[in-house]
Amino acid sequence: MKITKPALLIDENKVRQNIKKFVAKTAKSKIHLRPHFKTHQSKTIGNWFKEYGVSRITVSSVDMAKYFVNAGWQDITVAFPLNIRQMDAINQLAHKCKLGVLVESVDSTSILTEKVTTPLSVWIEIDQGYHRTGVQNDNILLAIAEILEKESLLNFTGLLTHAGHAYSAQSVDELKKIHQSSMLDLKQKQGELKKQGFSECQLSLGDTPTCSVSDEYTGIDEIRPGSFVFYDLEQLSLGACTESELAMGVACPVVAKYPKRNQIIIYGGAVHLSKEFQITPTGEKSFGKVALLSDEGWSSALQGTYVSSISQEHGIIHTDTSTLEKVQIGDILFIFPVHACLTANLFSQYRTLTGVQFQKMQSFCRDG
Amino acid sequence: MKITKPALLIDENKVRQNIKKFVAKTAKSKIHLRPHFKTHQSKTIGNWFKEYGVSRITVSSVDMAKYFVNAGWQDITVAFPLNIRQMDAINQLAHKCKLGVLVESVDSTSILTEKVTTPLSVWIEIDQGYHRTGVQNDNILLAIAEILEKESLLNFTGLLTHAGHAYSAQSVDELKKIHQSSMLDLKQKQGELKKQGFSECQLSLGDTPTCSVSDEYTGIDEIRPGSFVFYDLEQLSLGACTESELAMGVACPVVAKYPKRNQIIIYGGAVHLSKEFQITPTGEKSFGKVALLSDEGWSSALQGTYVSSISQEHGIIHTDTSTLEKVQIGDILFIFPVHACLTANLFSQYRTLTGVQFQKMQSFCRDG
Repeated sequence: MKITKPALLIDENKVRQNIKKFVAKTAKSKIHLRPHFKTHQSKTIGNWFKEYGVSRITVSSVDMAKYFVNAGWQDITVAFPLNIRQMDAINQLAHKCKLGVLVESVDSTSILTEKVTTPLSVWIEIDQGYHRTGVQNDNILLAIAEILEKESLLNFTGLLTHAGHAYSAQSVDELKKIHQSSMLDLKQKQGELKKQGFSECQLSLGDTPTCSVSDEYTGIDEIRPGSFVFYDLEQLSLGACTESELAMGVACPVVAKYPKRNQIIIYGGAVHLSKEFQITPTGEKSFGKVALLSDEGWSSALQGTYVSSISQEHGIIHTDTSTLEKVQIGDILFIFPVHACLTANLFSQYRTLTGVQFQKMQSFCRDG
Repeated sequence: MKITKPALLIDENKVRQNIKKFVAKTAKSKIHLRPHFKTHQSKTIGNWFKEYGVSRITVSSVDMAKYFVNAGWQDITVAFPLNIRQMDAINQLAHKCKLGVLVESVDSTSILTEKVTTPLSVWIEIDQGYHRTGVQNDNILLAIAEILEKESLLNFTGLLTHAGHAYSAQSVDELKKIHQSSMLDLKQKQGELKKQGFSECQLSLGDTPTCSVSDEYTGIDEIRPGSFVFYDLEQLSLGACTESELAMGVACPVVAKYPKRNQIIIYGGAVHLSKEFQITPTGEKSFGKVALLSDEGWSSALQGTYVSSISQEHGIIHTDTSTLEKVQIGDILFIFPVHACLTANLFSQYRTLTGVQFQKMQSFCRDG
């Protein structure tokens, strides 16, 4: 494998296994899988999902929706609060696919009513404890549903939630409880809306941690996990995956060694890995774990070895004497990222272990 | 100003003032300014430097050197430890410009000697307390210089240092002391090398904080600061600039408001601002300060208002009642980034306050 500079590497078999796991999970529960494509942002990987029967997707921006419409996707939810400044683009895009948008306030719903010119699926976002965005109050929920009902171009589709607070869970049991509580809350709200005459109200939930550990989805219509496609160290810490399911990382050339400090310097910094970090058991920052790379793939994560500091292009790896002796200047080390979505976002292309290269969406390379 | 999604905004007048300040500073001290272009990564902004007489530049990657050679720059230092995996690209590039590279160990210098095919300027990187990369030991320094002397294609140019530990300074006085100590150390090492017969040994130092507060450069040949072109909140906290010198930020649409939580949600997250943060006086994380935007430019930073949390595309702004009343869904807020280099790296183009748009280097959009 000829790698000259930091390269975004995936194990295609592991990616396909991760996809198949969720396709099987959702098939068993007879719900739809609407995976969040913000993680990989790639037409090629999107096509792998198609091979397993996935036809609905989630994206995080209007730009990303455009990219995937051009790749042939026909049912796309932009899971981000409606940005009314992009209404022209949204109206145009809704001509090309079944487009879903999110609202979470009377204000944005009212503006949407004024600006919509093309039929849209509208989801009302529910806040179930993450406190980022979403409706908490049942009266506001009803008020939004009533505004939507009056505008024939706006099709109230259902309730959508993202249990982002799952990322603070301390155990798999806690993840399962968050999942149960999310489902219960959505179904209660759905029941209340039905009493008010809103008979059509689907339920959409999804984040990778709770969906990875849960198998019970009675009454739910779809789930929208994203980072399961690659998983990452954050998911591993949460108990959402095993190390053998980690399917992506960054291959980085070794440029210097400092045995006295137990440090190896790689070409690989914040512009390759992002500045997302975890705290190690000894209280240090870790910007990624480290593995050895061969033509067959990457090794297990090296114990006691992690990216302890990063600047724009440099990464400092803290390690031990034995690893320092094994690794030479010019070797390639493989870094498991803390947060796969942010790392993938920094690259323009993927490489597989078999050396196949393909492009992903070029973040910000197009103007909207 | 028609802004529909997060946009990288600069005040051209402030950028030019920042450039002129350093051009004047270096002219006065009769040293060369070799600015680090990793901050802006833009041919257009590079041309503004040319207008003020700058002809030498620093970059942080071989890709970036290629980009700026194509923009007509003829004297480029890649201020990153030699990545021997890119020797083919380095040899090719050295045909097109006067190319400088860095070495910091006997090992990498020896490999360089084997692989070089085109004349290169070689700087030996000195570690003066940052402990990222660089030579600390005088015997190793001499050993490297001696290896370089034997290879006629390698022109030992001098000693180069980056006082990254300046970023931990607690006061402007401490910054000045670090600068004095860096200069003294470089001159001592230069003296020792001269005693050993290395008569040609330039001295290059540079980081924005120490160079912003210092005016004395006797015996130094060039400085390489970078982020002064825009400055940022980190530089402001260090005392390296004033708020009126902050020349760049991200314009972000407001998508939601949560008055009960004193929060405003913007379209602007980790993929726009990076995850670099500061700790506020009350111990909270801040991913950026916030200003109002008008056609004339941005306001002063709003007191008590900051980006308190970010996910991939969302930013949560913590604010007060009075700002909440002023700001409506669909408005644009302006975010001063914590670290300008990482924020600029996430975009493909700049917009000026007068609405002019121009491209920057597309990070990772080309393969090397």
